[in-house]
Amino acid sequence: MKIENPTPMQWQFSQRAQKLQSSVIREILKVTMRPEIISFAGGLPSPATFPVDKMRAAFDKVLDSNGKVALQYGPTDGYAPLREWIANSLSTDGTKIMPDQVMMTSGSQQGLDLLGKVLIDEGSKVLVETPSYLGALQAFSVYGPEFGSVPMDDHGLVPEAVAEVGQGARLLYALPNFQNPTGRTLSVERRAQLVETCARMGLPLIEDDPYGALSYTGEPLPKMLTMNPGGVIYMGSFSKILTPGIRLGYIVAPVALTRKLEQAKQATDLHTSQLTQMAVYEVIKDGFLDAHIPEIRKLYSEQCHAMLNALEKYFPAGVQWTRPEGGMFVWVTLPEHIDASKLVDEAIAQHVAFVPGAPFYANDPARNTLRLSFVTVPQDRIRTGVEILGKLIKSKM
Amino acid sequence: MKIENPTPMQWQFSQRAQKLQSSVIREILKVTMRPEIISFAGGLPSPATFPVDKMRAAFDKVLDSNGKVALQYGPTDGYAPLREWIANSLSTDGTKIMPDQVMMTSGSQQGLDLLGKVLIDEGSKVLVETPSYLGALQAFSVYGPEFGSVPMDDHGLVPEAVAEVGQGARLLYALPNFQNPTGRTLSVERRAQLVETCARMGLPLIEDDPYGALSYTGEPLPKMLTMNPGGVIYMGSFSKILTPGIRLGYIVAPVALTRKLEQAKQATDLHTSQLTQMAVYEVIKDGFLDAHIPEIRKLYSEQCHAMLNALEKYFPAGVQWTRPEGGMFVWVTLPEHIDASKLVDEAIAQHVAFVPGAPFYANDPARNTLRLSFVTVPQDRIRTGVEILGKLIKSKM
Repeated sequence: MKIENPTPMQWQFSQRAQKLQSSVIREILKVTMRPEIISFAGGLPSPATFPVDKMRAAFDKVLDSNGKVALQYGPTDGYAPLREWIANSLSTDGTKIMPDQVMMTSGSQQGLDLLGKVLIDEGSKVLVETPSYLGALQAFSVYGPEFGSVPMDDHGLVPEAVAEVGQGARLLYALPNFQNPTGRTLSVERRAQLVETCARMGLPLIEDDPYGALSYTGEPLPKMLTMNPGGVIYMGSFSKILTPGIRLGYIVAPVALTRKLEQAKQATDLHTSQLTQMAVYEVIKDGFLDAHIPEIRKLYSEQCHAMLNALEKYFPAGVQWTRPEGGMFVWVTLPEHIDASKLVDEAIAQHVAFVPGAPFYANDPARNTLRLSFVTVPQDRIRTGVEILGKLIKSKM
Repeated sequence: MKIENPTPMQWQFSQRAQKLQSSVIREILKVTMRPEIISFAGGLPSPATFPVDKMRAAFDKVLDSNGKVALQYGPTDGYAPLREWIANSLSTDGTKIMPDQVMMTSGSQQGLDLLGKVLIDEGSKVLVETPSYLGALQAFSVYGPEFGSVPMDDHGLVPEAVAEVGQGARLLYALPNFQNPTGRTLSVERRAQLVETCARMGLPLIEDDPYGALSYTGEPLPKMLTMNPGGVIYMGSFSKILTPGIRLGYIVAPVALTRKLEQAKQATDLHTSQLTQMAVYEVIKDGFLDAHIPEIRKLYSEQCHAMLNALEKYFPAGVQWTRPEGGMFVWVTLPEHIDASKLVDEAIAQHVAFVPGAPFYANDPARNTLRLSFVTVPQDRIRTGVEILGKLIKSKM
């Protein structure tokens, strides 16, 4: 039945698909899977924190007690008890979040895709931090925006700049807590200022918060969502506080937007795994995270300090880095003449990997920057790796 | 910290989001959840076929033996052993399918979205059957195509018509086996003809095959993929042969397209649940489906015959319906003056539900058509429901 000598297909990709590229990070990660490499390149949470037995018991219980429901098609907006749990966990004395504002997604990355689908037209102005999360730039890029870059300093993005660069923008995307890639935190004063500015401008503010629970002191930072629930779109994830491989995140938004996102999700993948949602609810419903998250904080805090100590010891003067108060990343700024995209090849030849900073910029990349992830590398290897990097950088100065 | 009297947000949705609507089917399904309703409206597989214990043992085993891997981020194209299993299962003596042609998706619906993302520009011509699968129309619509409708008869779509309506089209989407919504099967002769025509025109042919394994006789039908693997994009799913709530499907395409789809998937949701993929592989790797699928076929065949017998007995002359040889649906054509979209309200008032046919048409809906699903309704209720419908239709003639 096979047809003879068919003409080879000339694939005509859509204009948006022509913009898609494989992520630089994914390419570097392939190299760094080799065991001899000390890799600060990953963005993976530490598997030491995965509550495998707890998850196993939860899947078992859900399939045992409610298997036919867990395995059948489910509602597009998600499993109702889990949505309710999330709404409760985000509600404060002053701000009640309702379950119908919550939509479950297949990881936060899907939330970014759906927000792009629903809010971005070809040529729409979209504001992002400088630098910003690469996955967000990729998800939004598909929909053809013009990015506007909002400057940052050590206290996070600069709210005054939003009014300047943000006229006519369709949304502002911010990652206020222990940002990926910089590890920076938006100060509390600036949160209020930013929320006010966006509200005044009628500018939807996306608050992406995968790392918020991972404050090393355990001190919670106020969510911008609770400052203006009618204008802030909050994104949460179970990837960094439970496990990432199950792909479970959520969007909390005003109901009019949530219903539109639900229509988009229906056309995109119908719904996120019922079984996964029910199992995660089973894991967290009785307060498990209250005991679990402090353990992750403790581990990541120790790892971070090991890296900061090593940087202090081995990196030459003239190199700067952030001092994160939570999360998974340190951001390094080299002297201006050193291009981290070139440095990385030499580093890998010496068995140390990192991610160059350029891809995290929507516009005008600062090529002398790089991101270091410290959570999955044993502390003695952190020291060894930083020492090697320090010598390499010194040799370029 | 809450800001006072913020201006209510005026959401500006993207042009594509403005096209999104809640599916008519989902709206009807809400009504038909009431237990007194005999619902032929659903598109759900029968939960009686879900191998709950087998799934439970598989999740348990994967988490027990390989939990940290199952719960960590995974590759975008999917779990390698599962992709290999799929490639083997689709290979024939004449056509070898390679694992790098296979990409796992979060259900077939996501495959449709990714294909739309990568292949459709605003205004692209997209060919579909008349009628076609509603979920595909929804997924593609987001990307702004002009649909061209290829006529169908009892032997499936008419290949001769493709050359006529298909000049300059970007893809043809077909569901050759026990089609949703009509239950029709594309004849073997026409498969070869269609593949030849598409190859000659350089037109990518999407072969969506969620029901192919559910042939009542067990007789396999030749896949168009194997007739021209360089020009056919095959879509498979575990929803109808295992369980749908876990959201697991796949696309098999020429490598150049698979790599582009992989980039799109990376920006869309990074990857599909590792744990789910590993558990499904654990379930199926030793031949479980060879014994399981015949049980589903037997059940669905019996259900289908109960419905066909009832239609024969209770539906008046002048009404026509398809006689499926597999799958989950019967398609009914009423006399031209009866509008099924109006009939459904009266039917629901009498506690019987179905889906009107109009939404399944990309252009020029035949309003006198409707879809009946028979797999989840007990046989005595099939008879009762069809009897009620038959009387209602008679009263309109």
